[in-house]
Amino acid sequence: MSPVSLIGLGLNSEKGISMEGLEEARAADSVFAEFYTNPMPNLSLANLESMLGKKVRILDRTNLENENGIRLLEASEKGKTVLLVPGDPMIATTHVSLRLSLAKRGIGCRIVHGASIISAVCGATGLQSYKFGKSITLPKADPVPSSVLNALRENWERSAHTLLLLDVNDGQGRMTAQDSLTRLVNADSSLGERLAVAAVRIGSLDEMVRAGKARSLTRVDLGGPPHCIVFPGRLHFMEEEALKTFGGASDLDLQGNK
Amino acid sequence: MSPVSLIGLGLNSEKGISMEGLEEARAADSVFAEFYTNPMPNLSLANLESMLGKKVRILDRTNLENENGIRLLEASEKGKTVLLVPGDPMIATTHVSLRLSLAKRGIGCRIVHGASIISAVCGATGLQSYKFGKSITLPKADPVPSSVLNALRENWERSAHTLLLLDVNDGQGRMTAQDSLTRLVNADSSLGERLAVAAVRIGSLDEMVRAGKARSLTRVDLGGPPHCIVFPGRLHFMEEEALKTFGGASDLDLQGNK
Repeated sequence: MSPVSLIGLGLNSEKGISMEGLEEARAADSVFAEFYTNPMPNLSLANLESMLGKKVRILDRTNLENENGIRLLEASEKGKTVLLVPGDPMIATTHVSLRLSLAKRGIGCRIVHGASIISAVCGATGLQSYKFGKSITLPKADPVPSSVLNALRENWERSAHTLLLLDVNDGQGRMTAQDSLTRLVNADSSLGERLAVAAVRIGSLDEMVRAGKARSLTRVDLGGPPHCIVFPGRLHFMEEEALKTFGGASDLDLQGNK
Repeated sequence: MSPVSLIGLGLNSEKGISMEGLEEARAADSVFAEFYTNPMPNLSLANLESMLGKKVRILDRTNLENENGIRLLEASEKGKTVLLVPGDPMIATTHVSLRLSLAKRGIGCRIVHGASIISAVCGATGLQSYKFGKSITLPKADPVPSSVLNALRENWERSAHTLLLLDVNDGQGRMTAQDSLTRLVNADSSLGERLAVAAVRIGSLDEMVRAGKARSLTRVDLGGPPHCIVFPGRLHFMEEEALKTFGGASDLDLQGNK
């Protein structure tokens, strides 16, 4: 059995892969990719294949989970195998599960890291990474679970920022920040007056950051996916400056976060 | 004035840069780099320069902070300017400050993201990213600040994991996990019985993860930098499996985190 490498594609496009990841994928005998944990609308499979000089086989959830990654296992019997994944590998639980299942079979697994929204959201918004509390994924099904509202409240009580990832909306990429904020404000109207930050298409040339009261952001057209949302806690002076400069926040918007 | 790009070098070596970052740096008129916010002992400046096909000028803290990045500003008057930084840009406050100072002068700034320990530590350890509470940087000066002990306790009370980054030890890279754990256990002996995870040289070919009681990890030789530490909160079944499989934890080590 040859080892399997999980290689992160980073944010936005096929050019998010690191030089190390590129070299490793070029040297592999079989290259797979999955995009169901996180669609990458700006990635071109044709460009990716031409960068790597080889065919990339796309695995769906069934291929990777229900059959314990059997196609990966078969390939690793024949030679060096690579699985390309969106963002940074192992942020998705399914990758952890895959790596454990490889280890049980005595197959080594190496991770080549890529950029992730988990850290990129700090860069885009100017919010400080050490001030983020537990993050949340908002599921697409109504109603909004009380666990989401509880996590938002607990972080707020600790003056921590909350990163809210938006669940994948099958066939349409991730949900929008506007719709998600509307659902949250409907579930707890006090959230409407909280400062929120929409971080949109982070890493692309048309990335956008908009900071304002959650209720007002429900009416802003933010364009295509992917979107995510931060509910900031107490702000440091430099974070206030960043949200004004990069996100268009007003002094009034920031008043509740002093 | 031409825009300035902040490009992340990711983890470990010069090959952590993304394809997009590489193309942008190759097309730039001036390329700077800074490593004082986070030393990259495995990065070769000669290899980096040969990848980019141009000279890279290293900026120290004085160049970048005390003079408001004057050398970057001068370069951006003459053409497209790039600043290469360790990890993912803007995790360090100094990058936020730089971007704000560029914005005040009407100079655009683009971020090309890279892998960061903030997300990579999840992949290396199998701990789930959404369960991390506020992270902490342990300063090198004694005594251990009470804010560090408080943050550890608050995350524990919320069943959250705590990422502990280790401050840069001038001239010697970052502090070691062993020394840091010794200081923490001396400051609060109850931490000795807590499960801790040392994540070492993440992203390199000789990365290492060791999970066990904090007191026992103070006696393990983990080799060269960079090191970081996670104090896990309550563990999910799959996280337990991961800490056993990737970190060598025993059932006894995990007992306090059920």
